[in-house]
Amino acid sequence: MNASSALPDTLQAIDIRKPGGPEELIVISQPLPKVEPGYLLVKVAAAGVNRPDVMQRQGSYPPPAGASKIPGLEISGEVVQVGEGVTRFSLNDRVCALIAGGGYAEYCVVHETNALPIPDGISLLEAAAIPETFFTVWANVFQRGKLEAGETLLVHGGTSGIGTVTIMLAKAFGATVITTVGSEEKRQAALKLGADHAINYRNDDFVAEVKRLTQDHGADVVVDLIAGEYVARNYQAAAVNGRIIQIGVQNGAAKELNLMLMLAKRLTHTGSTLRSRSVEDKAAIAAELQLKVWPLLSQGRVRPLIDRAFPFDQASQAHKLMEASTHIGKIVLVMPDYSHLL
Amino acid sequence: MNASSALPDTLQAIDIRKPGGPEELIVISQPLPKVEPGYLLVKVAAAGVNRPDVMQRQGSYPPPAGASKIPGLEISGEVVQVGEGVTRFSLNDRVCALIAGGGYAEYCVVHETNALPIPDGISLLEAAAIPETFFTVWANVFQRGKLEAGETLLVHGGTSGIGTVTIMLAKAFGATVITTVGSEEKRQAALKLGADHAINYRNDDFVAEVKRLTQDHGADVVVDLIAGEYVARNYQAAAVNGRIIQIGVQNGAAKELNLMLMLAKRLTHTGSTLRSRSVEDKAAIAAELQLKVWPLLSQGRVRPLIDRAFPFDQASQAHKLMEASTHIGKIVLVMPDYSHLL
Repeated sequence: MNASSALPDTLQAIDIRKPGGPEELIVISQPLPKVEPGYLLVKVAAAGVNRPDVMQRQGSYPPPAGASKIPGLEISGEVVQVGEGVTRFSLNDRVCALIAGGGYAEYCVVHETNALPIPDGISLLEAAAIPETFFTVWANVFQRGKLEAGETLLVHGGTSGIGTVTIMLAKAFGATVITTVGSEEKRQAALKLGADHAINYRNDDFVAEVKRLTQDHGADVVVDLIAGEYVARNYQAAAVNGRIIQIGVQNGAAKELNLMLMLAKRLTHTGSTLRSRSVEDKAAIAAELQLKVWPLLSQGRVRPLIDRAFPFDQASQAHKLMEASTHIGKIVLVMPDYSHLL
Repeated sequence: MNASSALPDTLQAIDIRKPGGPEELIVISQPLPKVEPGYLLVKVAAAGVNRPDVMQRQGSYPPPAGASKIPGLEISGEVVQVGEGVTRFSLNDRVCALIAGGGYAEYCVVHETNALPIPDGISLLEAAAIPETFFTVWANVFQRGKLEAGETLLVHGGTSGIGTVTIMLAKAFGATVITTVGSEEKRQAALKLGADHAINYRNDDFVAEVKRLTQDHGADVVVDLIAGEYVARNYQAAAVNGRIIQIGVQNGAAKELNLMLMLAKRLTHTGSTLRSRSVEDKAAIAAELQLKVWPLLSQGRVRPLIDRAFPFDQASQAHKLMEASTHIGKIVLVMPDYSHLL
């Protein structure tokens, strides 16, 4: 084990006092975690804020067994200690990483296979906004959904964290992209990100629009975080042999879902969450990302979009913004020692 | 084009007078169909009766464009005329075939690539009970569901046509098979067919039973014709990375479907109907069946299970039995010239 000289005994982190509103997020102090073999201790520069963090705060998304109860699923920072057997990284390396929890903290342990080098030209602040959405989109849209060049993809919520990355990666890999958004401002932002078509769902029926835009072919891949009444409509908007990729269930259960359309169109409905997956599963996604997507980031062809960065102790404000859904792109928290990034 | 000498000008067929009950099935006379290039004219010995035929009779499952309005999706019989360019079959060959309609008739045209030779040791009567279920199970459980040796499969309705074939093929390819049935008689029949476990759903909760029987692993593949309230329960009974294969929707729409379980377990829900697929798609399934499943039939390791054969003019009785769901295995209609098969 190898550590940089001046590590403190304790760290500051954001804890959830009790399930409830944003005001339940409080700053606490706790001991520095022990670094197990294969793990890195990272001094966190910035942590991405994600909707699952909000659900965890509300009490509806408990951390998986063994994970930190501190929220936060992704970080950027600098390696300050390496566990036994670590081969991929050394002290002072700048990394971003996917974690099962514990990101809202000054220090965080991450498995070296779930960390990636920060791509050339990407700042520490931007890097914190990469792992959760890029791992999620890669694992779901490309690995599970098998999106191919020349296909048409429909993604709901094109200006969300998942939405922006889906648009950028789908375009980079040769798909035609249609997205839904809830305002004219978001429509312009989605088009600027590269979407071929952006539908304001408040004005237009997305099923009819997708059919019109594709000459009745439909969307080969549909990426949905909404669920609820969207599920049946996604089946309607999908092409024969379409894949509906469920990444979230913000609107809850589907109330009336006729599966005859699934059979007639031979649809595949699937999805996954990352958090409960094993370190090995996440490592396999990381390896593909490094090979296929990191070059796009280094070349500037794809770039994380940040809506707003908050100081660490304004985590409540960050959650309020997430819940208001007025943001375009990612929300991040910046740790006290990195306030120059703000 | 090559035809046997004594073909009549007209044939008898079963028509649907108007959407309604079994009594709407009537015998009509119509001209012999023209044999297009690539097609065979088959003198039908027997036709399988399937649930889609009942739905078509009720008016809820119209034939696809271009298909005969006469019901019947599978037949066995003898080739009496071959269209231009036919290479796979000759006059007098005994075949069974999948068709998009028109099976309840004395003569029927089939594309040569959607016909298969009758396996050694299988009678003309049994052969009529093969295509629809074997094509459906192969395309869905093996091609879409990717069932593998060593996995656990749950199939609902183990004594239905689809159920019996799923049990036999899943066992033949090395899976552990659990099935649900509605009576003790059906339970015994399912076990005799090779199911490892048969759950009487009237007495036991299948979700709890599947978990108990698999030590909480769940079913890797679930084959369901029911839908309705079964959909959410199938998700509960499925293993991580499980595939739910929807082959029918007998109980209609799912009323309350929480997709969180799909995400957490990384489930894939998919399914397909055969009827609307192209001749080429069906040919690809036929080719795999001939390679991988026909040897099992010839060796007697797998055998179609027939509940009852009815004379052609008792099609109404055959539909009544299908609707009563007391049958175990397939129901077939035997054509007038083949009444010795009864």
